[in-house]
Amino acid sequence: MIVVMQPGCKPEQVDHVVQLVRQLGLRDHVIVGTNRTVVAAIGDKRNLDTSAIETAPMVERIVPILSPYKVVSKEVKIEPSVISIGKFGGLIGGKKVGVIAGPCRVESKLQLLEVAHAVREAGAIGLRGGAFKPRTDPYSFRGLGEEGLELLAVAGEQTKLAIVTEVMSVEQVELVCKYADVLQIGTRNMHNFGLLQRVGQTDKPILLKRGWSASLDEFLLAAEYIVNEGNRNVIMCERGIRTHETYVRNTLALSVVPAVKRRSHLPIIVDPSHGTGHAYMVPAMSRAAIAAGADGIIAEVHPDPEHALTDGAQSITPEAFKKLMPELRAIAHAVGRDL
Amino acid sequence: MIVVMQPGCKPEQVDHVVQLVRQLGLRDHVIVGTNRTVVAAIGDKRNLDTSAIETAPMVERIVPILSPYKVVSKEVKIEPSVISIGKFGGLIGGKKVGVIAGPCRVESKLQLLEVAHAVREAGAIGLRGGAFKPRTDPYSFRGLGEEGLELLAVAGEQTKLAIVTEVMSVEQVELVCKYADVLQIGTRNMHNFGLLQRVGQTDKPILLKRGWSASLDEFLLAAEYIVNEGNRNVIMCERGIRTHETYVRNTLALSVVPAVKRRSHLPIIVDPSHGTGHAYMVPAMSRAAIAAGADGIIAEVHPDPEHALTDGAQSITPEAFKKLMPELRAIAHAVGRDL
Amino acid sequence: MIVVMQPGCKPEQVDHVVQLVRQLGLRDHVIVGTNRTVVAAIGDKRNLDTSAIETAPMVERIVPILSPYKVVSKEVKIEPSVISIGKFGGLIGGKKVGVIAGPCRVESKLQLLEVAHAVREAGAIGLRGGAFKPRTDPYSFRGLGEEGLELLAVAGEQTKLAIVTEVMSVEQVELVCKYADVLQIGTRNMHNFGLLQRVGQTDKPILLKRGWSASLDEFLLAAEYIVNEGNRNVIMCERGIRTHETYVRNTLALSVVPAVKRRSHLPIIVDPSHGTGHAYMVPAMSRAAIAAGADGIIAEVHPDPEHALTDGAQSITPEAFKKLMPELRAIAHAVGRDL
Amino acid sequence: MIVVMQPGCKPEQVDHVVQLVRQLGLRDHVIVGTNRTVVAAIGDKRNLDTSAIETAPMVERIVPILSPYKVVSKEVKIEPSVISIGKFGGLIGGKKVGVIAGPCRVESKLQLLEVAHAVREAGAIGLRGGAFKPRTDPYSFRGLGEEGLELLAVAGEQTKLAIVTEVMSVEQVELVCKYADVLQIGTRNMHNFGLLQRVGQTDKPILLKRGWSASLDEFLLAAEYIVNEGNRNVIMCERGIRTHETYVRNTLALSVVPAVKRRSHLPIIVDPSHGTGHAYMVPAMSRAAIAAGADGIIAEVHPDPEHALTDGAQSITPEAFKKLMPELRAIAHAVGRDL
Repeated sequence: MIVVMQPGCKPEQVDHVVQLVRQLGLRDHVIVGTNRTVVAAIGDKRNLDTSAIETAPMVERIVPILSPYKVVSKEVKIEPSVISIGKFGGLIGGKKVGVIAGPCRVESKLQLLEVAHAVREAGAIGLRGGAFKPRTDPYSFRGLGEEGLELLAVAGEQTKLAIVTEVMSVEQVELVCKYADVLQIGTRNMHNFGLLQRVGQTDKPILLKRGWSASLDEFLLAAEYIVNEGNRNVIMCERGIRTHETYVRNTLALSVVPAVKRRSHLPIIVDPSHGTGHAYMVPAMSRAAIAAGADGIIAEVHPDPEHALTDGAQSITPEAFKKLMPELRAIAHAVGRDL
Repeated sequence: MIVVMQPGCKPEQVDHVVQLVRQLGLRDHVIVGTNRTVVAAIGDKRNLDTSAIETAPMVERIVPILSPYKVVSKEVKIEPSVISIGKFGGLIGGKKVGVIAGPCRVESKLQLLEVAHAVREAGAIGLRGGAFKPRTDPYSFRGLGEEGLELLAVAGEQTKLAIVTEVMSVEQVELVCKYADVLQIGTRNMHNFGLLQRVGQTDKPILLKRGWSASLDEFLLAAEYIVNEGNRNVIMCERGIRTHETYVRNTLALSVVPAVKRRSHLPIIVDPSHGTGHAYMVPAMSRAAIAAGADGIIAEVHPDPEHALTDGAQSITPEAFKKLMPELRAIAHAVGRDL
Repeated sequence: MIVVMQPGCKPEQVDHVVQLVRQLGLRDHVIVGTNRTVVAAIGDKRNLDTSAIETAPMVERIVPILSPYKVVSKEVKIEPSVISIGKFGGLIGGKKVGVIAGPCRVESKLQLLEVAHAVREAGAIGLRGGAFKPRTDPYSFRGLGEEGLELLAVAGEQTKLAIVTEVMSVEQVELVCKYADVLQIGTRNMHNFGLLQRVGQTDKPILLKRGWSASLDEFLLAAEYIVNEGNRNVIMCERGIRTHETYVRNTLALSVVPAVKRRSHLPIIVDPSHGTGHAYMVPAMSRAAIAAGADGIIAEVHPDPEHALTDGAQSITPEAFKKLMPELRAIAHAVGRDL
Repeated sequence: MIVVMQPGCKPEQVDHVVQLVRQLGLRDHVIVGTNRTVVAAIGDKRNLDTSAIETAPMVERIVPILSPYKVVSKEVKIEPSVISIGKFGGLIGGKKVGVIAGPCRVESKLQLLEVAHAVREAGAIGLRGGAFKPRTDPYSFRGLGEEGLELLAVAGEQTKLAIVTEVMSVEQVELVCKYADVLQIGTRNMHNFGLLQRVGQTDKPILLKRGWSASLDEFLLAAEYIVNEGNRNVIMCERGIRTHETYVRNTLALSVVPAVKRRSHLPIIVDPSHGTGHAYMVPAMSRAAIAAGADGIIAEVHPDPEHALTDGAQSITPEAFKKLMPELRAIAHAVGRDL
């Protein structure tokens, strides 16, 4: 941490800051510059809220130096983590690019199996589908519950796809673990620390979606919560952020892919469906994600988007998915990856 | 809902959209304009995800007409709701402007009582304080738990202040209800629909903070979740949004105050501490909030911000709070309100 | 500037950075911390692009310490600047809060005089009105040109109001200076450095609007461009920023008022019309601006907003303005100011 | 345009809106729905500011139906425009993906020729370089001026690359046209309508960069300004937008690529250098851009980024560029394009 003093600060004000730094158990180092005096505070106290020093007299601002996360960072592990999903050999990370696809929500056995077979044939390794769906609107239907989980498990067995489904609260974790291969933490729950800790105590891989307006540090800290509980199998997932743009539901911030890879050993995949909100953009942004170095995508596929009960506007058809996969494979090869 | 067709669409494509509209149980009304044909869909189906029509051939986009919330809107109740907090007569809404203040987190009995007495003398009607604190960083300390709640209850009794404290999960609701007068739903939980429904089943007033990047519709829909369960006592709270600005922790969007008042009968207060992140801005933005028509503020006050365990940078001292209150009172009077 | 090295960097890589720092004419100071080594670069080289050091091996990032502006900062002048506008004694800054009002665009002599007399009677000190209007849409009408300037000058004489009007290009400066008392630099031109320099060579006060997505540093740097040319009479103006919010045309970031006052001696006013985009919000946000400590407001007033050729949606009527002014005066007094 | 009335509006208030619609020369069509009455206004009046109707009594809001641009849209021309740049056969658009590369700023003949030869050999078709550089900071050096243009022209002749350089004001247009093959309109000037019109009167292709916070409609309207003057050769360029993200200089919004292609016949390229601000991200985001369907990229290449006078942090070396080009070519082929 660097404490920047205001111009014109007095020696006793610098001393006061030095005392505050020492009270935190940190070493101090004062540098008198041409226009500013700064106090460098040395030592690893990531767990302290040191911003309070800002309120000391004549302090201009505090500049943190250490990133707030540690176990997910490359400080701890250099080589990329490869994460195994499900019992049929699916891998995400390292050389392996993996594609997960399926409907927003499980609507019926027929719908689910139709999609599952189609995406499996096209080369997906995972089947997504919501049994419990968070709905911003209290009047919307909210999913089939355990029946949906059972259907997912059946579809997974039939098609040899890993099942990826969202868990929305601490109480659901045990139930969802019975059926799912990968637990998804949704955007709305990225900051739900109790839930992060609970899934960190399971042995299932976690697919962690970035919060709508989460900073990169917050995204990595959410993963840190999970890994800290002993579960190292976290797959990060970019799904778009809120910006001023209105032609998309969210702005897909693909730069986060190289940014995460520079800072962390964890794999990162991309959700082009929520990340755009419009089916016509999904193929383009899926290709872009793989080209940017993402370790996979998770896409919404529905046999009849016009009549989908949720998220129809951003779901592509099985036909569109079938056409997309060879393009993704060619791009993966162009960047030295396997899909 | 209005379905806008692309230029050059064919009659059978318009017919196809008309069929989709009718399948939703809505009446259709086709308007052929100079450059665009639109299909108006008439009827109240707020509970349907109608965006899927966007994927029909030659549809350009869907424009919703009805707002997605209803019971919190002025369609249902014109006059502003006045909400009673605690047993000592505190009111928020209508003519009444109410101030809630206290430390970010309960640290000790001494700290809490010092602040409670100070803010009470200055004219506050509520005492805020965290017993369970969500921390973005897994290494930060996270509160005293039930001991903190007990201290809050004691301080409330001694000072005749209503106790406002955050409830972070469904499981905590019962416990927090034992001690608190107002349940706060934090920013990170505005989209936690299970929690919203659970607090909607209590008889405590709810202080609902806006999510970091929540739209106005989503903010009002979160309140709708609560009110739908039978609890009409919701106090909205603006606490800043994520933008490109870096000189603040969040950008305090005060225009939301007149915007909520135009659409809803619920009161809205402002959090100038989280809404800026810097103690030096808190007095200015508290004054601005009342001038904009807010029904109150909730501010962080700490006897020794330099040594606060959390949020010190945005906490003002009891002295600063004492100086602020008469200014707020004068401004409340200038806008025809009581404080 | 602080250069933060990556963990695991080698001594020769630190040395390489030290060399780069010295080549810039700065002194170096290496601090070896527990987890990070940093190189502090000492000396005032605000004029150098030092970010290139980021590309040196094992550099994590660059942290600037000095703010990039100087002559507009409190490092150079502590007491607030008070700026005189026009020949009728209008003042903005220090104790004085000043209100500027008028139509978006000069449409006719009748319209202009009606508004001018109305706002003068209510207590305004300046008359705004566009003669040349930037229009995002190439099909919109773009103003009366010099005829509009003449009408403004006549109205100013008749009502003893200072004339505030926008200058949009270097070539217009001379012409506009013949008629106007204050030159307005619009949002779209905040980064037009040639224009900033040109108006910096005039002896007219400059009203500088913040760019749509300008950071605080960029806003102050734009003022620095003007002051550097010798014109110290710059009035900053917040007019809203682009965010994800859609219920407003822009998000009015009132925290910028205390933020500018902490950093600079220049006065700052607020535009509640562009800053919201909706007439119904203008009174609330005008009051909030004064309460936040703004040195004035600039508001759009039109005798018949429904038929205004431009910006009708955000224009208030003379009657609404007349009702607003006593509220603003009461709030100004509550914060120790005169209006 | 659709005018949405508030619930509870009276027939005479609807009539009043109908009158306003007719006064604009539009036809009216009233639809009485279950909860809302709307007035559809029919006719093409893109050139009117119709938002003023919002201020009429009991109007809730105005919903535009027509997009505000026309000549750049697919309403006018379906097939994608292919734009020829320079005299050496470079093409951008249709099947052709084109790469433009070079230093941020022309620093010396040696520097420029080294880069020009390197990027030409690697397969670029254009050489970028700034002769006049807008600098946010008034203390930064601002380019070689005409000498820089001469060096660019020499380098273009030697290497058979089209010269792309920024024109910053109306007065510079004639001079820059003497030397450049493509005129670049920078981000800060996307809303400089006088400049857009002036370059629209030249016969040079225009590379139009998106404004920092420009909406998609504003971006296309800026192109409309140019095309309206007779110059149809506009190349759109995404270069990142301002968001809350701080690990990048700008957030590269690649979804704008399929969005522009859905709406317009104009080609669109991507600037991965300004669009990220960090050299380490440039290869990943260049690949992503081509995969998303962009018609090319414009990248900053500098022989010695550590010592670049400007934008060193985001410049890649000629070696990195040479390694990148075959990857881009493979991705172009994967999406059915030539590079």
